[in-house]
Amino acid sequence: MSAPTDPTRERSQREDDVLERIAKIVAPERTPAGETYVGDDAAVLAPFVGQAIISTDVAVLGVHLDAVLFPLEDLGYKAVMAALSDLAAMGARPRGLVVAVSAPPGTDLEALHRGVADAAALASTPVVGGDLSRGADVTVAVTVFGECPGRGAVLRSGAQPGDELLVTAPLGRAAAGLRRRRAGAELSDELVVAHRRPWPRLREGTAARGAHVHAMMDLSDGIGLDLHRMADASDVGFALTGLPVANGATLDEAISGGEDYELVIATNDPGRLRLLYLDRGLEAPITIGRVVEDPAVRTLEGEPFERRGFEHNL
Amino acid sequence: MSAPTDPTRERSQREDDVLERIAKIVAPERTPAGETYVGDDAAVLAPFVGQAIISTDVAVLGVHLDAVLFPLEDLGYKAVMAALSDLAAMGARPRGLVVAVSAPPGTDLEALHRGVADAAALASTPVVGGDLSRGADVTVAVTVFGECPGRGAVLRSGAQPGDELLVTAPLGRAAAGLRRRRAGAELSDELVVAHRRPWPRLREGTAARGAHVHAMMDLSDGIGLDLHRMADASDVGFALTGLPVANGATLDEAISGGEDYELVIATNDPGRLRLLYLDRGLEAPITIGRVVEDPAVRTLEGEPFERRGFEHNL
Repeated sequence: MSAPTDPTRERSQREDDVLERIAKIVAPERTPAGETYVGDDAAVLAPFVGQAIISTDVAVLGVHLDAVLFPLEDLGYKAVMAALSDLAAMGARPRGLVVAVSAPPGTDLEALHRGVADAAALASTPVVGGDLSRGADVTVAVTVFGECPGRGAVLRSGAQPGDELLVTAPLGRAAAGLRRRRAGAELSDELVVAHRRPWPRLREGTAARGAHVHAMMDLSDGIGLDLHRMADASDVGFALTGLPVANGATLDEAISGGEDYELVIATNDPGRLRLLYLDRGLEAPITIGRVVEDPAVRTLEGEPFERRGFEHNL
Repeated sequence: MSAPTDPTRERSQREDDVLERIAKIVAPERTPAGETYVGDDAAVLAPFVGQAIISTDVAVLGVHLDAVLFPLEDLGYKAVMAALSDLAAMGARPRGLVVAVSAPPGTDLEALHRGVADAAALASTPVVGGDLSRGADVTVAVTVFGECPGRGAVLRSGAQPGDELLVTAPLGRAAAGLRRRRAGAELSDELVVAHRRPWPRLREGTAARGAHVHAMMDLSDGIGLDLHRMADASDVGFALTGLPVANGATLDEAISGGEDYELVIATNDPGRLRLLYLDRGLEAPITIGRVVEDPAVRTLEGEPFERRGFEHNL
């Protein structure tokens, strides 16, 4: 396999040549008229409708993904989906993404970008540009941008006392998948796939925006941390009646596992939200409790709901 | 200075706390009505006028900046200006930028972000979001986005035979500054400052768009490489009559030094371009030659002009 005739060993590592090969991997099937992606100083996109929504996420091999347990493709895939989840959390429609990679010589940059391309294609979001550099780590910085027509984006700061709180699905799948993989489960195990291939709730996010919900965010760090962030931003408290735990996950994984990328939503009209989800063929959102006026009240089934979840130290 | 009472040593390294301190450094003085920057899942910007223009650039300490010769601030500053130069090259007006950083524990993230904030403020471009991670290197991925009203962005692929070729200023200052710094010049030396604090030609870029030039790009890797890229994209050749060399720089630095961030422009109406520059108080652009039909013709004063410049190996 590593004989001198291995064509991959003879490939040029000149920047322009590497970029050309990667451009072919990430190129969408069609570029819309009037848009220009890779190949110029910057990407040109047709005008956005309404507000422009932008988010950036950096993922580092060994920090955000265990290089022993998972293939390099997963780093590219997860970096894209984590960033797109931030658009989902605003109710935005994605319009494109760019990816900036640094990596040591010898890194399989094509595998990494196949993960990026797979995620982008599944989310119908074109990769419109990128950059590459040498570096000691493999880092992937993904920036996504989308549009919010009509009333605009749903912030995390709009929750009001009396609002119902809902989540888009049972929680804890990603953390359970990581635990199973560490215990020897195959990469194709259903929960391991949930960890490797998270799905951002883009359709659920735009539908929630359409239902005029008051506040929304994604649960990238676990509801035990992210719901506190929403309550802090909105200057309210909450009383949870129960949390839906995914099959195969523990309550602790559901609370503080993170990387589920489900949405938490606050609305005074949950009936309208349910109807819109039903109408669009989406799974019904699950009620978990209610927003209360006192910011000091943070409870689950009447007991204090402590702040805990996945928080990096820098 | 490193006594136990040093307040910086007691500062929390919890992600939310670090982010809060950095948010204060990069926050613009005013956030326009209807816009939300740092603090939500994504940034919300008021609608763009015309096309959306996007570019991403990653800079790595030790690759893009010598950590011994230059302070860490310069890495943040240069990463922002390099990305903004890509907007200048399209004739776009910047609307905002996001910055994704990975760095080892103990890195002075506040110094790095002061460089980011200085560059953003000088270019009147708000920092609207960011992300942080641990990593072995210091990497800074900057993504900029801007707008192009009217006829839209100027591509590098539009040069036509007979067009005049111009550059926005004499070349080679950044490379000369690096050479001088290596030889012991102060950080405040004029050419060293040109290297540390490059200035993207944003006003020159939008003026060129207004003058309906045919093609434009920035000279980030040196005209010895970038002019070939423009000729390749436009399927044309060029005949240069001369290159303007900056005071203190060599011809070689002007051709292949890179990091000057001047613009090269192809237009069939240089008079209109000059008039618009004069009208807006910009330095007159300098004619360097002419576009020719045969893509094989690439000459400087009649001699072959070889492809050479700053090209990374990956």
